Amino acid sequence: MHDDRYIQLAHGNGGRRMRELIASLFVRHFGDSLNTQRDAAPLPDISGDLMITTDSFTVNPLEFPGGNIGSLAVHGTLNDLAVAGAEPRYLTVNALIEEGFEIARLDRLIASLGDTAREAGVAIVAGDTKVVARGEGGGLYLVTTGIGTRVPRLNLGLEHIEPGDRLLVSGPIGDHGIAVMLAREQFGLSGSLTSDAACVLPLTRALHALPGLRFMRDPTRGGLATVTHEIREATGYGMSLEESAVPVRAPVKAVCEMLGYDPYYLACEGRVVAVVSEQDAEKALALWRALPQGADAAIIGTIDHKTGPVVLTTSLGGQRVLDELEDDPLPRIC
Amino acid sequence: MHDDRYIQLAHGNGGRRMRELIASLFVRHFGDSLNTQRDAAPLPDISGDLMITTDSFTVNPLEFPGGNIGSLAVHGTLNDLAVAGAEPRYLTVNALIEEGFEIARLDRLIASLGDTAREAGVAIVAGDTKVVARGEGGGLYLVTTGIGTRVPRLNLGLEHIEPGDRLLVSGPIGDHGIAVMLAREQFGLSGSLTSDAACVLPLTRALHALPGLRFMRDPTRGGLATVTHEIREATGYGMSLEESAVPVRAPVKAVCEMLGYDPYYLACEGRVVAVVSEQDAEKALALWRALPQGADAAIIGTIDHKTGPVVLTTSLGGQRVLDELEDDPLPRIC
Repeated sequence: MHDDRYIQLAHGNGGRRMRELIASLFVRHFGDSLNTQRDAAPLPDISGDLMITTDSFTVNPLEFPGGNIGSLAVHGTLNDLAVAGAEPRYLTVNALIEEGFEIARLDRLIASLGDTAREAGVAIVAGDTKVVARGEGGGLYLVTTGIGTRVPRLNLGLEHIEPGDRLLVSGPIGDHGIAVMLAREQFGLSGSLTSDAACVLPLTRALHALPGLRFMRDPTRGGLATVTHEIREATGYGMSLEESAVPVRAPVKAVCEMLGYDPYYLACEGRVVAVVSEQDAEKALALWRALPQGADAAIIGTIDHKTGPVVLTTSLGGQRVLDELEDDPLPRIC
Repeated sequence: MHDDRYIQLAHGNGGRRMRELIASLFVRHFGDSLNTQRDAAPLPDISGDLMITTDSFTVNPLEFPGGNIGSLAVHGTLNDLAVAGAEPRYLTVNALIEEGFEIARLDRLIASLGDTAREAGVAIVAGDTKVVARGEGGGLYLVTTGIGTRVPRLNLGLEHIEPGDRLLVSGPIGDHGIAVMLAREQFGLSGSLTSDAACVLPLTRALHALPGLRFMRDPTRGGLATVTHEIREATGYGMSLEESAVPVRAPVKAVCEMLGYDPYYLACEGRVVAVVSEQDAEKALALWRALPQGADAAIIGTIDHKTGPVVLTTSLGGQRVLDELEDDPLPRIC
């Protein structure tokens, strides 16, 4: 009657099949930190100023060069804590699984999630699974919520940004967006590009001691351009970016030209944009370039002294306004 | 080109439409505790032993007599903290919205979520929205994660359960399961039943001072029978329940008989099962019955002195073993 290689509605009913799936798959990959006999889990040995963040993951395809929805669900949420100036400690995980999903594939993705969390030193302490009817769930959606503690004496925020501050990016933009798009194979293209998805903690930690560090953000949905607009909306200041300074890999440029995309709006999942005082900008750059993940870091622009748009000075000396993202220029990739 | 009354993919792209949707809908209903300019939110003024829980909500239909997916997403998660002996403080919310979803309906459901959180005294501090392509999302899924603090000197857990302890239930079982099923109208039935979905904090708080309180759980997915099996699996003890003592409303019984369902496996969303020492059981019952939500509370069974099944003594004096839930006897309702 049932094919045991695939998820059935009964895997979500609270009964035997759900208990066995959780024990054989989630608990096995997440380890002893996950006690499924509790309605709520303690968060032991945590002190200081707590911070929380949450993110949902609906990437399609579920696996792509350089990552998968499982590793991404860890990186995405830990990176949000990292750029907010926190050290991640605990994670919760929700899995919404579509009826008919292959259990071997689920096992592989959840194993990757568990491994990624372990590498980052965070414990998965609580979770939940739901099975949704065939045709209602896009295969697998994951939601992760992360708890961390603010690094003492580090107070970052958009409100600290001042005119003259520099914008830095930790590496080439758009690799994740293009890698996921190519993995869909719907363009008939394939390339050697891999996603930049990674834990950014080494990058954010490198700048903690800099007094001129004002603000950090990871340019995910909406890309670098969206981060500049978030800065502009919160501070009121315009910005000037140098196109020639913004690192974009040649294959990303090539695919963008071919398909009419703009790399400034493409998602990254392992990059950091930092706003640093003029005085500390070169120090920040040197700190990042000393790291393997930051080898291609660059100072890409300056916060203006007055209100205005985000202006990109092109390699040919022209100027182009980077508008806020309107209708979606891209397939949904995160 | 676009009909502004419905969710579009661009509402999830990180750009203008997403920013406006979040400001006009989520921030408006969730209040000032939600600062959308941050990657991670602080959890201020919290001390003591922290506890966390998370739950996903995929109920169909999204609105039913007595509640909707928004109010349920608050009650479900706060109730898990409450039965674990914690006082809820903070909540995060993820919304996975299907392209084409009516914005007026989203507004109504998110308003209900915000109102329910406010009534329970918890602040929504972080959130995330994703839009999934038409045909991939079941309309709306919600995920909530709750943070609370353990009530001092309260130490509940399956490991404290002893032979001779009594099982109590705070009210009639199965109302939620039947109300949601009838709301689907797929049986051609309709009734006056409303869901029991509610915040159980008054019920859990009422028992905090009882030294004989061992363990509490809310019988959601899999119902009362599943809670008894969780107790049995963790403790090794069997259990005896008295069918005549278990409160089940007449219309729930009638629908179950008509459709062949068993009320013991039906979900409740506002009930508590408590295990209390023999000595304190009558006190616990009196404390619950003094509350409006606990008027129909009952002592329904006893923890056996040896390993064995969960045995239900029927009204006719016969005995029936309550098996662990196997394949799903019910449409998915939570």
